[in-house]
Amino acid sequence: MEKNYRIVIDTLGSDKGPEAILEGAKTVLENNPNINLVLVGDSELISSFGFPKERIEIIHATNTVTNYDNPMEAFYRKEKPSVFLALEKCATDEDAIGVISSGNTGAVLVGAIKYLLNENRDRPCLAAMIPTKINGHYTCLVDTGAITDCTSSQLVGFAHLGSKFVKQLYKIENPRVGLLSNGSEPTKGNKLVKETHLLLKDDKEINFIGNIEAVNTLDGLCDVLVCDGFAGNQILKNTQGVAMTLIKEVMKFGVINKQEDITKQIAGHIMKNYDFESNGAAIMLGTKKYVLKCRGSSGPNATVSACNILINVINNKCYY
Amino acid sequence: MEKNYRIVIDTLGSDKGPEAILEGAKTVLENNPNINLVLVGDSELISSFGFPKERIEIIHATNTVTNYDNPMEAFYRKEKPSVFLALEKCATDEDAIGVISSGNTGAVLVGAIKYLLNENRDRPCLAAMIPTKINGHYTCLVDTGAITDCTSSQLVGFAHLGSKFVKQLYKIENPRVGLLSNGSEPTKGNKLVKETHLLLKDDKEINFIGNIEAVNTLDGLCDVLVCDGFAGNQILKNTQGVAMTLIKEVMKFGVINKQEDITKQIAGHIMKNYDFESNGAAIMLGTKKYVLKCRGSSGPNATVSACNILINVINNKCYY
Repeated sequence: MEKNYRIVIDTLGSDKGPEAILEGAKTVLENNPNINLVLVGDSELISSFGFPKERIEIIHATNTVTNYDNPMEAFYRKEKPSVFLALEKCATDEDAIGVISSGNTGAVLVGAIKYLLNENRDRPCLAAMIPTKINGHYTCLVDTGAITDCTSSQLVGFAHLGSKFVKQLYKIENPRVGLLSNGSEPTKGNKLVKETHLLLKDDKEINFIGNIEAVNTLDGLCDVLVCDGFAGNQILKNTQGVAMTLIKEVMKFGVINKQEDITKQIAGHIMKNYDFESNGAAIMLGTKKYVLKCRGSSGPNATVSACNILINVINNKCYY
Repeated sequence: MEKNYRIVIDTLGSDKGPEAILEGAKTVLENNPNINLVLVGDSELISSFGFPKERIEIIHATNTVTNYDNPMEAFYRKEKPSVFLALEKCATDEDAIGVISSGNTGAVLVGAIKYLLNENRDRPCLAAMIPTKINGHYTCLVDTGAITDCTSSQLVGFAHLGSKFVKQLYKIENPRVGLLSNGSEPTKGNKLVKETHLLLKDDKEINFIGNIEAVNTLDGLCDVLVCDGFAGNQILKNTQGVAMTLIKEVMKFGVINKQEDITKQIAGHIMKNYDFESNGAAIMLGTKKYVLKCRGSSGPNATVSACNILINVINNKCYY
């Protein structure tokens, strides 16, 4: 990165409180001398963290969108919630490369559509990069929760957005696109999947390789895995849940068999890849600038990790 | 079990060939002196296995339903496929307690509805017992693939069938029913899930505890987890896929660090619970007799395991 970029961070979205996000922000500034931050949240609290003044800008906000709010109604509230202020700032500040929020997914989406939607674009989706068993290979899972009730043409839109993204990020010439289904045969799937299968098969701009079953999500069989936001959310969260459960099993085994040294190492090795809660962030595709959505339960690492994804994306010249 | 029961086995469904199923059948006979078998398949091949004549009955069949066939059309074929012969036999033989098949799921369902549907019952579903982190506790996941496009009233039907089943099987007085969603709040979910949430909340016969996220599927938070067959299939297969991938990671770690003894033990421990492919079977609920559906890629263990589930179900006086 040649010049100083700015990243906008909504500090109010996490269930762990703004302190967790601000801790993460501190690490981001320490690790990246050419990144400055715009911090949206309680200005008094933010000031108390002693950030270097020349590297941050504060936008005061105390209002949030809870998981019980209607995101669209929240958008038109008198006192704007932090997530919308953050997205608005990103849209209007030309040095800002992206936004990070742990807030309500619906609100992040509504704000992104209001402020950052590209004209002539499909509705944005949330992609997650899933680590596969092939060293260094990730599968881009789209959508992971932006749209829970999709049409087949929206799924085709996700396939295009995902293909373009991994083409730029990983320099893959002709990304393999798979469709999540309950069987590998074209006749398998629910109504939506069967319809989408036919559309993807006929789409000349997509390298469609057919249906992929959930048993193979970590096998690296495709570069982009397409599904509706409800299914993608299940895959993402189930993968994390199973990994965390098995880590605990491994640790328990270590205690019982007095082999804690080795089982701790194994657990650390697995955590590094599959603890999406503290490491990962979903990235919105189809917007004018990148929007990163961390889990509601995000700790400091999530902010650090989301910034790293953003910097990587910009360094690889992934255009929105 | 006091008297001799019969189990009907469709020997033609597995991708691994009838030999794999017949190997399993042999073990079942050896392990269970009071279980006799009806084997549906190639009579010449079956005879070549040297089963004790007084303990088996053979129904000759060579026709199958492939994953490319339309199950309903296949049902009306002149020469009946083995799966339908097996289900018909189970329906008409009063000593038969259930059927096991690894064949096409749609065909198993069509056959079950034609021959074994209880009057005044909801459409049957396929339940899978998911091991949880609580020792000895399973969560009954319904549906895992019988109906991929469901209505909310079908999901409520699954909740009833699942509740009744675990009540009998595990003697749980008031089974906790959860609804799979992409957030724990009642407002989260796709259209189907939101509708179903409202229906379950008002259902006085169901102990509905609310939405469950996929990150918690192995946490034992509920006794019955309700979802449509597409979502359930994703959870079941993704759980297996992630577990198998992590086992391979653990093994690789053992080789690199010369700790293969301990990592092999850990892998075996995990395999025992999560290798659904060779161990598990989905059980159909809502039929006059129990129908067990093994995975298409089932080996001999799947047949043994399915018989054990069936025997356990009958011993626990789970009425259809």
